[in-house]
Amino acid sequence: MRCLPMLAVVALGLCRAQTPDDSQPATSNVMNAQYPRVHSDLRVTFRVTAPGAHAVQVQPGGADNGLGKGPYDMVRDDQGVWAVTTPPAVPGFHYYWLLVDGFAANDPSSETYFGYGHQTSAVEVPEKGVDFYDAKDVPHGEVRVRWYRSKTTGMWRHAYVYTPPGYDSGRTRYPVLYLQHGAGEDETGWTKQGRANLILDNLIGTGKAPPMLVAMETGYAVKPGAAPVASPAGPPRTPNAFEDVVIEDLIPMIDASYRTLADRGHRAMAGLSMGGMQTLQIASAHLDRFAWIGSFSAPIRNFDVKTSDNGVFGDAAAFNKKVRLLWIGAGTGEEAMHQGAQTMHEALDKAGVKNIFFESPGTAHEWQTWRRDLREFAGLVFR
Amino acid sequence: MRCLPMLAVVALGLCRAQTPDDSQPATSNVMNAQYPRVHSDLRVTFRVTAPGAHAVQVQPGGADNGLGKGPYDMVRDDQGVWAVTTPPAVPGFHYYWLLVDGFAANDPSSETYFGYGHQTSAVEVPEKGVDFYDAKDVPHGEVRVRWYRSKTTGMWRHAYVYTPPGYDSGRTRYPVLYLQHGAGEDETGWTKQGRANLILDNLIGTGKAPPMLVAMETGYAVKPGAAPVASPAGPPRTPNAFEDVVIEDLIPMIDASYRTLADRGHRAMAGLSMGGMQTLQIASAHLDRFAWIGSFSAPIRNFDVKTSDNGVFGDAAAFNKKVRLLWIGAGTGEEAMHQGAQTMHEALDKAGVKNIFFESPGTAHEWQTWRRDLREFAGLVFR
Repeated sequence: MRCLPMLAVVALGLCRAQTPDDSQPATSNVMNAQYPRVHSDLRVTFRVTAPGAHAVQVQPGGADNGLGKGPYDMVRDDQGVWAVTTPPAVPGFHYYWLLVDGFAANDPSSETYFGYGHQTSAVEVPEKGVDFYDAKDVPHGEVRVRWYRSKTTGMWRHAYVYTPPGYDSGRTRYPVLYLQHGAGEDETGWTKQGRANLILDNLIGTGKAPPMLVAMETGYAVKPGAAPVASPAGPPRTPNAFEDVVIEDLIPMIDASYRTLADRGHRAMAGLSMGGMQTLQIASAHLDRFAWIGSFSAPIRNFDVKTSDNGVFGDAAAFNKKVRLLWIGAGTGEEAMHQGAQTMHEALDKAGVKNIFFESPGTAHEWQTWRRDLREFAGLVFR
Repeated sequence: MRCLPMLAVVALGLCRAQTPDDSQPATSNVMNAQYPRVHSDLRVTFRVTAPGAHAVQVQPGGADNGLGKGPYDMVRDDQGVWAVTTPPAVPGFHYYWLLVDGFAANDPSSETYFGYGHQTSAVEVPEKGVDFYDAKDVPHGEVRVRWYRSKTTGMWRHAYVYTPPGYDSGRTRYPVLYLQHGAGEDETGWTKQGRANLILDNLIGTGKAPPMLVAMETGYAVKPGAAPVASPAGPPRTPNAFEDVVIEDLIPMIDASYRTLADRGHRAMAGLSMGGMQTLQIASAHLDRFAWIGSFSAPIRNFDVKTSDNGVFGDAAAFNKKVRLLWIGAGTGEEAMHQGAQTMHEALDKAGVKNIFFESPGTAHEWQTWRRDLREFAGLVFR
């Protein structure tokens, strides 16, 4: 099927017939693909053609995926079409892949999203009555890909930059949120998986957040001559070279290239998971650059108010004077991250360090948690 | 391997050891992935871990792929790692996929590129001494994702828009090139596969092309209530609703949103394959909008100088007066497209219709042909 020349008819939508139910193709599918389909009770039906395979399964990504643990065995029909329907899923964005005779393959019906260090399938399960991350009739900003040369690495890098509606036609200067993805993801995550641009469009369009720029970069960097990082998903030994990229390369490039308010009072950093850890490390080491800090589901272990994060919480009064917002978020469905966040929050409260603890109800270490983080965080920042 | 939680170490680079040769990881790989590797003689080695599979092959995409016809049988070692090395490839960008027990799967080591109606693996084979599509030390423009509402379809669409270096800091108005992808591809193709932004950066930075905007859109559209197109790769029955999108929605949006020179003398349309056909059809029907026309490897069949393309070539003098450039390109390695282009060129010459016939030496119906088309076309347009 995939061997046709470019101009031949490519048959999309693996199976279009017979859907006598209320299911809809997932919005995360490629155009015209009919599967995966999401039912009104949030069960998800996957379907794929693989007549030569001996076993095909659906494997949700990660430990606490809203699709369930899996793998789900698909059942073959006499045409070699395999299908399975999951139990009702948690709303949100869920990575998955197919196991075709054990080989982890993308589902050709799904768009791909950079996660786990490569391009991965995912399914969007809608949350009833929730549309804060949908495209709506409000003015839309742009997402720009900006190439720049990094002095730190000696390499070309590219940042994704959200500019708010009206940026081109005005003369206004804007605050900047530096927003980081998680381990195994990259600079495309916050817009492609997270829909950060649509979340900001909707908030700004309804006056719930001030217009701002958002700079999104890849959270990996290697200095010239250094050994390559073993993996972009690497263990908590960051930020290393990435800290220098942010401070020496990225912030100066953004301030030189866009109409920014280039002072600490108008500069925030936030990130999810590994990006939350990078945020706490980098922002705490550079309070002369950042007045607003957001940790979304960071892995927080052995938190000590005197020594953690460069000891920045040791003097509560000084910290409270400098930092306008310290946000600590986690989903109630992600046990370890939630426990770490709560421990940090309670220790900070006890020490008199102002902070906000945000719990995303029912969601785990997944994008629905971080979309909610962003919606709330963006409503508080730069006020 | 792919089931680790987000924060665990994800092992990338399927096999890093033992590469006692001159091969390099392809630049089309995801970060840190060591395979596919391209040798100095342009052989390509693929390698993938699939211990449970019974047969794994590499399948180049399309009829005249520079990797060869394939499929190439991979050989399994005792660890379940499969590998194969192809014969020397033609330089350029080649789609491919793995056949894992017959199932067409992406290679997890490859970035994905929208082709064949879904996300597809590809390998970049460098051309010796050729760097016109590489990132170089010249000023860089931006690639912007611009959301807009289409009156034609009633849906949100997003265009990719290249803005030249200095766009933000100046007050200059620019000409616009509307640039279309091929069947089965989408609005990401020209920048991701084609590197159009880097080609323009390099041309503009060295004075070989004038600064311009480039608008890239998805070449599919359906009017409300109409049946969905059978496939985005559909047969030559376009442009249908897409013509209305271009004329009624896209051009007005671009002219309203960017500092354009909004007259026909500063507006070009070009496209590859299906996009070349759309260009000939749409531009010929709207010569009040376009003065520069580029067909890159369009499928040209039964060309008739009196009737083809809305009969626009019937009055050579009128056409020559209106159209500043008619470009007809094809690779020498794509027999049918080359034959069609040559037939059209010769018929136009005979009828006194000015045109340029461009032959890309040795390349087929692939992106290397279209990168070369763009380089030459951009050097002639808007002069």
